Amino acid sequence: MTSESPLEKDTGRVEAFSDGVFAIAITLLILEIKVPNLGAGATDGKLLAALGALWPSYLAFVLSFFVILIMWVNHHEFLRLVRAVDYPFLFANGAVLLMVTFVPFPTAVLAAHLGAEGARGAVAFYCATFFAASLAYNVMLCTVFPSRRLVRSDVPDEVLDRVRRAYRSGPLVYGLSVTLALWNAWAGLALCTSLWALWTNLCYRSSRP
Amino acid sequence: MTSESPLEKDTGRVEAFSDGVFAIAITLLILEIKVPNLGAGATDGKLLAALGALWPSYLAFVLSFFVILIMWVNHHEFLRLVRAVDYPFLFANGAVLLMVTFVPFPTAVLAAHLGAEGARGAVAFYCATFFAASLAYNVMLCTVFPSRRLVRSDVPDEVLDRVRRAYRSGPLVYGLSVTLALWNAWAGLALCTSLWALWTNLCYRSSRP
Amino acid sequence: MTSESPLEKDTGRVEAFSDGVFAIAITLLILEIKVPNLGAGATDGKLLAALGALWPSYLAFVLSFFVILIMWVNHHEFLRLVRAVDYPFLFANGAVLLMVTFVPFPTAVLAAHLGAEGARGAVAFYCATFFAASLAYNVMLCTVFPSRRLVRSDVPDEVLDRVRRAYRSGPLVYGLSVTLALWNAWAGLALCTSLWALWTNLCYRSSRP
Amino acid sequence: MTSESPLEKDTGRVEAFSDGVFAIAITLLILEIKVPNLGAGATDGKLLAALGALWPSYLAFVLSFFVILIMWVNHHEFLRLVRAVDYPFLFANGAVLLMVTFVPFPTAVLAAHLGAEGARGAVAFYCATFFAASLAYNVMLCTVFPSRRLVRSDVPDEVLDRVRRAYRSGPLVYGLSVTLALWNAWAGLALCTSLWALWTNLCYRSSRP
Repeated sequence: MTSESPLEKDTGRVEAFSDGVFAIAITLLILEIKVPNLGAGATDGKLLAALGALWPSYLAFVLSFFVILIMWVNHHEFLRLVRAVDYPFLFANGAVLLMVTFVPFPTAVLAAHLGAEGARGAVAFYCATFFAASLAYNVMLCTVFPSRRLVRSDVPDEVLDRVRRAYRSGPLVYGLSVTLALWNAWAGLALCTSLWALWTNLCYRSSRP
Repeated sequence: MTSESPLEKDTGRVEAFSDGVFAIAITLLILEIKVPNLGAGATDGKLLAALGALWPSYLAFVLSFFVILIMWVNHHEFLRLVRAVDYPFLFANGAVLLMVTFVPFPTAVLAAHLGAEGARGAVAFYCATFFAASLAYNVMLCTVFPSRRLVRSDVPDEVLDRVRRAYRSGPLVYGLSVTLALWNAWAGLALCTSLWALWTNLCYRSSRP
Repeated sequence: MTSESPLEKDTGRVEAFSDGVFAIAITLLILEIKVPNLGAGATDGKLLAALGALWPSYLAFVLSFFVILIMWVNHHEFLRLVRAVDYPFLFANGAVLLMVTFVPFPTAVLAAHLGAEGARGAVAFYCATFFAASLAYNVMLCTVFPSRRLVRSDVPDEVLDRVRRAYRSGPLVYGLSVTLALWNAWAGLALCTSLWALWTNLCYRSSRP
Repeated sequence: MTSESPLEKDTGRVEAFSDGVFAIAITLLILEIKVPNLGAGATDGKLLAALGALWPSYLAFVLSFFVILIMWVNHHEFLRLVRAVDYPFLFANGAVLLMVTFVPFPTAVLAAHLGAEGARGAVAFYCATFFAASLAYNVMLCTVFPSRRLVRSDVPDEVLDRVRRAYRSGPLVYGLSVTLALWNAWAGLALCTSLWALWTNLCYRSSRP
């Protein structure tokens, strides 16, 4: 048995583990929103005002929630192309999950600085996370597609080509959003967000066998 | 293949992911209860008194636990009407899960202010969360029921009508509980709570094919 | 269809959801152990001493970990007697899960006071949690056993009798451990711990059809 | 029925529960990375510098993420040798999961002290965790292998021998890394890390029937 031989013939176990990590990471996002500490003399009005002032936290929460949801959908669509699991794929998939798990941290940084000082730095860091995540998705692709080593036999080559093109555009555009964020926080965040919409659409059209 | 075609023929994967998010959100509730910091000179009596003084945290924990449990039951009953998954449904379901994930935050706010200053504001915010959640449930319904686009063929129309009526009453009554809370915290919370009992009963009677 | 009719014919879904809650609650226990804040001038010796001084946290962590593990085993053994799910059972099971979810809090209280002031109060609170949990297990039993309403047909009556006796002894002995803890912390904790060993043995012998 | 008789004929349920604990522990790692508190006057440059200064947290996060991933792979490979579950195995498996659940704490200690004072103590504590984990893996092995009591009939003896040798080397080398860490933090951490690579390779070659 060579190191090339697959560990398992189907991807069910990796899928279940990955789904678990996605579900937990998406739920941990809420922990970044902290209850406002009003001390003594908290009136209803002051409380509601303090809750309203947390809008950057809510926005960061909603954005990251839907990013992780889209990453989950893409991950699942990707796994439908895969017929078996080996160690290179397992660790590349681990790198993707590492980035998913990391998302709550840049989300908390974003929440702390959006609409305040340091917003450009926070958005750049936030976009850089997805730059790294898109690299990880590309590494995962490289453990599956070349010579169709782990690709299901019923997936046509043109589907692989389209998925490959969609994945390769990721690092480029996320890299651009980092640069843009350093110039204008909202512009960088908008590019990041619009990318997710685009990404959904691209993958939807490209990864269906 | 048009954008209308379903992604998957059964809902198993979405169900498993959603169940994971429900299970995690319900368990994260406990993190809002903080160990009382008594400093030096903590006697057994002082500790037990401090633990007793946390009753708003316990109450908020228990209420939110059973709300999420009921939301989970309803979600599952709903999914039993669905025959396939497409993108609009996936994102509407994501909006429902977003609100489920959000629950620990208003629960912590409620725990911090119930029986103290700012109680009306805290209860109003708590009820407003379920107002938003009931809107999300209605959006999810709208991605499934119209023209029976994703409804199982063995579900009779009258079941859909009853579920639709039950769901539509949600935003109305939760909106009312927000208003009521701003006038009297306990009255608002009582309406919210009684709604859950009603909701269980309504759905139990209405969603059984 | 009456309110007595079961919701589902098998318990698979409730089992998966419950297992999720058990797995999450058992893992959240680690969050009660806080990194010692040594400030400036932290030498290796001071750090290791500070880590050693956290022994009450480690002890509380290990105890609660194995309690939740045993509760999970018992829960699963119990579900093997059940043939169907209805609302009363669902909510009684919810009460059991509520107590499981609650465990990290008394664990943190125990960790903060064991071997220090307030130890008796902390252990009494810890034991009281399992008193409440054992009540919840008895309520769950009452939604399943009477008239064998949700019991599998292949489970003999004598098995039910033995499980019933084992469950009924729970509140009695946990109640005793609360009283004992108020007199001597370590004695109360020892009774609580030995109960788990006994409990495992009792259930192992009694719940096997 | 004696206390030796297996509880269940297959390991599916233990596997699902264990996978849940692994997935949650790996995701909780992110909670150790705290948002830098810059107070007023946070510029983009200061924020990015503060985020860069968190490199020990990132390093500790990445290391622990891949350790837990490798522990998960090994755990799964091990379970593929097991044909049934009984109480001794269940509690030994619980001890392994206890150590997995514990990992976020030494990770946070490592993050707080790496590249600062107390680094040797922190790395020694970190390595000691995996020393304990490797002991737990060996205890688990002892509940399964002797007299092939819970081993699948299609697993040849030589596979068991190789797995046994690989597992037995664990405590020795992790013990060495603890000693090494007390002399030089980076050397100890490097030995720990290289062990994981070795471990993967050993297990890959040895546990394949």
